[in-house]
Formats: sequence, C-alpha cells, structure tokens
Amino acid sequence: MQDFTFYSPTYFVFGKGKENEAGHYVKRFCGSKVLIHYGGGSVKRSGLLDRVKASLEQEGIEYVELGGVKPNPRSGLVYEGIELCRNEGVDFVLAVGGGSTIDSSKAIAAGAIYDGDFWDFYQGKAIERALPVGTILTIAAAGSEGSPDSVITKEEGMFKRGASGEGIRPAFSILNPELTQTLPAYQTACGATDIMAHVFERYFTNTADVEITDRFCEAVLLTMVKEVPRVLADPNNYEARANIMWAGMTAHNNICGVGREQDWSSHDIEHELSAVYDCAHGAGLAVVFPAWMKYTVEHNPMRFAQIAVRLWGCQMDFENPVNTALAGIDAFKSFLRSIGMPVSFAELGAKEEDIPAMAEKCCHGDNRGGTVGNFVKLHQEDVENIYRLAL
Amino acid sequence: MQDFTFYSPTYFVFGKGKENEAGHYVKRFCGSKVLIHYGGGSVKRSGLLDRVKASLEQEGIEYVELGGVKPNPRSGLVYEGIELCRNEGVDFVLAVGGGSTIDSSKAIAAGAIYDGDFWDFYQGKAIERALPVGTILTIAAAGSEGSPDSVITKEEGMFKRGASGEGIRPAFSILNPELTQTLPAYQTACGATDIMAHVFERYFTNTADVEITDRFCEAVLLTMVKEVPRVLADPNNYEARANIMWAGMTAHNNICGVGREQDWSSHDIEHELSAVYDCAHGAGLAVVFPAWMKYTVEHNPMRFAQIAVRLWGCQMDFENPVNTALAGIDAFKSFLRSIGMPVSFAELGAKEEDIPAMAEKCCHGDNRGGTVGNFVKLHQEDVENIYRLAL
Repeated sequence: MQDFTFYSPTYFVFGKGKENEAGHYVKRFCGSKVLIHYGGGSVKRSGLLDRVKASLEQEGIEYVELGGVKPNPRSGLVYEGIELCRNEGVDFVLAVGGGSTIDSSKAIAAGAIYDGDFWDFYQGKAIERALPVGTILTIAAAGSEGSPDSVITKEEGMFKRGASGEGIRPAFSILNPELTQTLPAYQTACGATDIMAHVFERYFTNTADVEITDRFCEAVLLTMVKEVPRVLADPNNYEARANIMWAGMTAHNNICGVGREQDWSSHDIEHELSAVYDCAHGAGLAVVFPAWMKYTVEHNPMRFAQIAVRLWGCQMDFENPVNTALAGIDAFKSFLRSIGMPVSFAELGAKEEDIPAMAEKCCHGDNRGGTVGNFVKLHQEDVENIYRLAL
Repeated sequence: MQDFTFYSPTYFVFGKGKENEAGHYVKRFCGSKVLIHYGGGSVKRSGLLDRVKASLEQEGIEYVELGGVKPNPRSGLVYEGIELCRNEGVDFVLAVGGGSTIDSSKAIAAGAIYDGDFWDFYQGKAIERALPVGTILTIAAAGSEGSPDSVITKEEGMFKRGASGEGIRPAFSILNPELTQTLPAYQTACGATDIMAHVFERYFTNTADVEITDRFCEAVLLTMVKEVPRVLADPNNYEARANIMWAGMTAHNNICGVGREQDWSSHDIEHELSAVYDCAHGAGLAVVFPAWMKYTVEHNPMRFAQIAVRLWGCQMDFENPVNTALAGIDAFKSFLRSIGMPVSFAELGAKEEDIPAMAEKCCHGDNRGGTVGNFVKLHQEDVENIYRLAL
C-alpha cells in the first residue's frame, strides 16, 4: 500500500425530501448570497428549483440564478458564472443537477476568487481556494458530489480536461434518490456505467497488497450489478435507486482508491469521444472500457481473473487464468449491453476515420505528456489500437 | 434504506513515519498549546513520544503532557486532564496511543470547555463542542481515530458508558502501520476482534435493501480474515498491518453503517465483562459475540446465511438455511480461536455467579432503559441467557 492522505469533509444529507433543507445547510456553511446553477428545464418542470428557492427564502438567503449547463459542460458558461458571482457579490454556489452542473459550479466557484483565467486549473494548477459549493444531486453518475474534481470542455479546440483540489470538495451534498426516479432508462444506465468506470479506474493498479480497497471497489461493483437491473425494470424502485446513489458517491470520493496507483486512461480516451461526438460520458465509457481491458489484460491476468471471479462469478481456470480474465471482460460487456449501453463505435455513432486525430489529441493535446494511464502507460499508437478494438 | 447524514471530516494521514508531521497538522488545525495524552511507558520506550514532541517543537508549538491512560479508561484521569487543560490554557488535545487514549482525550477535550460534569455526556447528552483533537494511532482496534464516539468507565460504580457527538470527531488522525508492528500477538488479535465486532454490530439489522453497506461491511470482514493470520505469522508484515489499520478506521467511521438500524447489544453486554474483570474489550467481544449470534440466529436466518456464504465461504443449504447460518457462526468462533482469542467465560476468567448482576446492570444500570440492542431487543433474561451460552 502506498502512503496517502484521505480527506472527505463533505456533509452528506441523504433521503427523501432533503432538498427542502437546502437553505438550512447553506446557512450552516455561512452562505448569504447564493448562485443557483442548473441545466435545462427539467429542474423547473419537476418543481425542484421552486422547492430549493423556497428553502433559501425561508432562511432569508438571497440568490441569483444561472441555468443552461449542458452535458460535457463548456467554458463559456463558466466565464459567465464567474462574472455573475463577482458582480453580484455571491459567496456560495449551489449546484442543482448532475455531474455537469456540479462540475460547472466548481469551476465558477474556483474562478470567482482567482485573479487569472480559470482554465489554468484545467491545465494542472491545483485548486486550493474556491467559494463554498453545495450540491443537490439529480443523477447518480459522476460522483462529483463528493469529489475534489471537475471536468470542463474548452470551446476553443474542444479540449475536455479535468481539474482537482481540496478547494472544490462540496461543503454539503444533498442526495435524494426520489429525484432520480424520473430519469429515462438510457440516462440511468449511462450514470451507472460512469460509476462502475470510476471503480475500475482505481481497481486496475500496479500497487500490491491493497485488499481493503480491492474489497471496497468490489462492494460498489457488486451493488451496481444487483441494483441497476432492478431500477431499469422499475424506475420507481426507491430502494434500488438509493443503493445506486450512495454507491455513486463512494465510487469517487476516493474511499475505494486510497493508497494505490490509479489508471484513468479510459477516462482520457473517452473524453475525446464525448468532445467530438458530444455523446454521454457513460456511453463513451461503455465503448472504451471493455476495449481497454482486452488491450491490457496480459499485463496482469490474475488481477482481471480476480474481478472476474469476485464480481461476475466466473469459474477460475487455474490452468490458464487468462481465460477467466477474458470471461470477466465478456461478462462486463454483456452486462453493459443488457442495460442498453452502446459497446462499439458503430452503436455510438463514432467514426473510424476520426481515430488518428483523437488518439493524437488524447496523448499530445493541450499540455499532455505523450502517454495516458498508469496500469499500462499508453502511447498514441496504443490508444489508436484501443479505439480500433472498439469498432 | 433509512435516511441518514454522513459527515467524516477527519483529515487522515496514512503511512510510514507520518508521526513526524504531527506539528504540521496541529498547526493546520490552529493548535498553539497542546495537551499530549498517552498511556503507559511503551510510547516513551519506543521513542514515539520524543518524535512527536520534536515535531511540535519544530513548529514552535507549546505542550504539556498527561500519561497514565489505562485500558478501559477511567473518569479520574479525565477530570485530571480537564483541570490541566483549564489551568494551562490548552487549545488542542493530541492523543498518542490506542482507543483508550483517544477516548480519554475526547472526554478531556469535551469536558475542558463544558461548565457541568463531563459525565453528563456519558449519560446521553450529545457532545456538540470540544477542543479539537488529533490522534497518533498505535493499535488498529477501536476505530476511535475516525469516530464521533468515546467510551469511559466511571470509577464510582464501575459504569462503562459511551458518549457521542460531532464535536469529538478528530480533526486529524495519523495512521502509521509501522507503529503497530511491535504489538504482542494477543493485543493485535484483540484489536482485530474489536474491528470485526464493529462491523457485525452494523451488519445485523432489520433494515432491508442495504446492499451497498452490506457489501462494505463484508469488504472489511473479508480483509480481516485474510490479513490477521498474515500479521500473526509475521508481526513485521507492513502490508498486512496497513490493510488492517485502514480497515479498522472504516469499520467505525460509519461508512459501513449509514442508512441502517444498528444493533450494539454485544458491545453493551461486553462492557459489563470488561468493567468487572478488566479484560481487554476485544477478548470480551470474542466471548460474547458468537453467543449473541447463536441466541438471535432464528430472528433472521437468511441474514446469517448471507454472511456465512459471503465471508466464510460456507455452502448454502437451500433446504434449511439455518444450517448455513450456524455453520457461519461456527466458522467465526473457529477463526477467533485460531487467532488466540478466548471464546468462553472460563477462558476469560469470568465467573458464572456474576451473571445475574452483570445482566441487571447491562439492562438497568445508570439510566439504561431495560433493554439493549435493536436487531433483537434483549431484556435482562435474554442477556443472562447469552452470558450462559458463553460459559
């Protein structure tokens, strides 16, 4: 196990109707003028936005609002939000939505009190200070409600890049599984895929002797494999929604990843797909991850066999563990198909001819160092091969 | 799943030599005059105390010290510590030791800024405010390094009681597995038993549909079953020590217990044993827990069968699940024996004739309401029966 620090100070409030306590928690974390940041019309149509506003008003908290966050959130709206915060004297950013809204909120919160261009943070500068951020989560997926991370797409050049820092860990996050019951099946499945991918990025490691975090990773994955089909069969299944929602937080606040080298190349490889085709991040991951697994399986077949046995219940082939490893990858791909995810370029609407440019940008674009990943360091050629395995 | 809040803001610093950063973290959490609280001579003999002092001095932080914490920490030393903090203007309490030292430190930290008798907190008053507490952990066991809990024994009447409150969550906890390498096998095994017991207290619940926390519980238990024998075979196995140390924190900061009713009767039943015989808490738990399991198995045989299959690898008896449930309990008892724990009153040196008095005190002593536990509500007669099953 590697040395590590773990700091997850977010106050999580989980359960039915908890969005009505938003004002209470904003006050607890010393907010007096709030930017409510959100995406499209669904938070309005569902009445969620009105309930949140009522809760703020009840506590005498002022607010301004900024909607319009899109999936794969863009830098343009972040600049607009920063401007708004500065002009209005905002001291707290409240995200009402999913990972894109939360990530955009984090970028605004960091940029509002930073003298330079907020994009500096997305080119590697750690975010140490930001306005406090609260979240009211509407989809189990990105885990941004408990993470110190944010991903934004820069419109000039369509670079999709991540930033990180303790400054953008949410002060509080409200998780009400009821809010996810109206999600379409496709979005639910995209979110589930993202959650599982967050775990796999941590699971495939070169760090030995990490039983406790291996087992935590498996805990989240086993939960997803049980609960996602239940939710797709009955979207109103509160209990299954609740298990998935909490699993999604734990998949990414790093309780599953401390003390081990992590990979993250599949995310980098996927980001090029969603930057070019504007597909859902989870859908892109469903295409990339099984291909990445097949490409890297020989690097450590026993690790792949372990997850095949422990998660998918594959029989261990003691004479030839790579057979078990491959059976596990097939089981994952079948699971993704069964929940309605695309698993190929064709199904995603991605094009073979774009592969060289995407692989080049993945490894060399915008300050990248020529390789992605840690489990296996992948060069441009490897990334091309992985895209081709996903055709 | 029940509604819940989860708030674990402790800054965890994990790895080799991290105690040398104690001064840095005290400063980060605004301590300027520290009470260093510890137990016996081992922290002196090992040089740990000197390293901690050097680290404080390096940061220009003043300190006073109070040693002498014993297992099952007593109220007398807490009163002494409170007095010392007030007289010396202490603004930070640094625990160097195991669960007893940390619990005593928490009691001092809460009492130092409370007008009444600190024992009020151990009779049910929530601890909302306390001086900040830091910990440098020397044994994986109690989980107090990440919990909002403290257990103290009141010398008048030998009442062993717990207190709780966000005010006593440690600001930071330094976990260096190297510091546990010198522990005798018996203490290591007692600590391991305590860790497993913390998980079982959460696992046996009447709350349905808690897959994610079931799986987290199992993650900790599976890790213990793998790593404890490795450590007993080779006390210097850093990797196994590291897995156990982190498992011990996660067993009790409630990441394994959110959203579910928890039991805790075995702890209550054990507390009477260690109050009377001054045995190690883990040893008492090893005697009590298998007996509690046998006594309550019929309440929900499928839950017991689940852990028997998932943790101990028992074959499921689909015709008669209670057989599987009982096989799991036997496997647990065998495991405890294999790591050198007592599993009966005789082995612990406890006496049958004390049973009625202990059962009475457990259920009725010092403000208790007549029953303990939640999975099954146990009356005095039930507690007597459980003690007798452990003869």
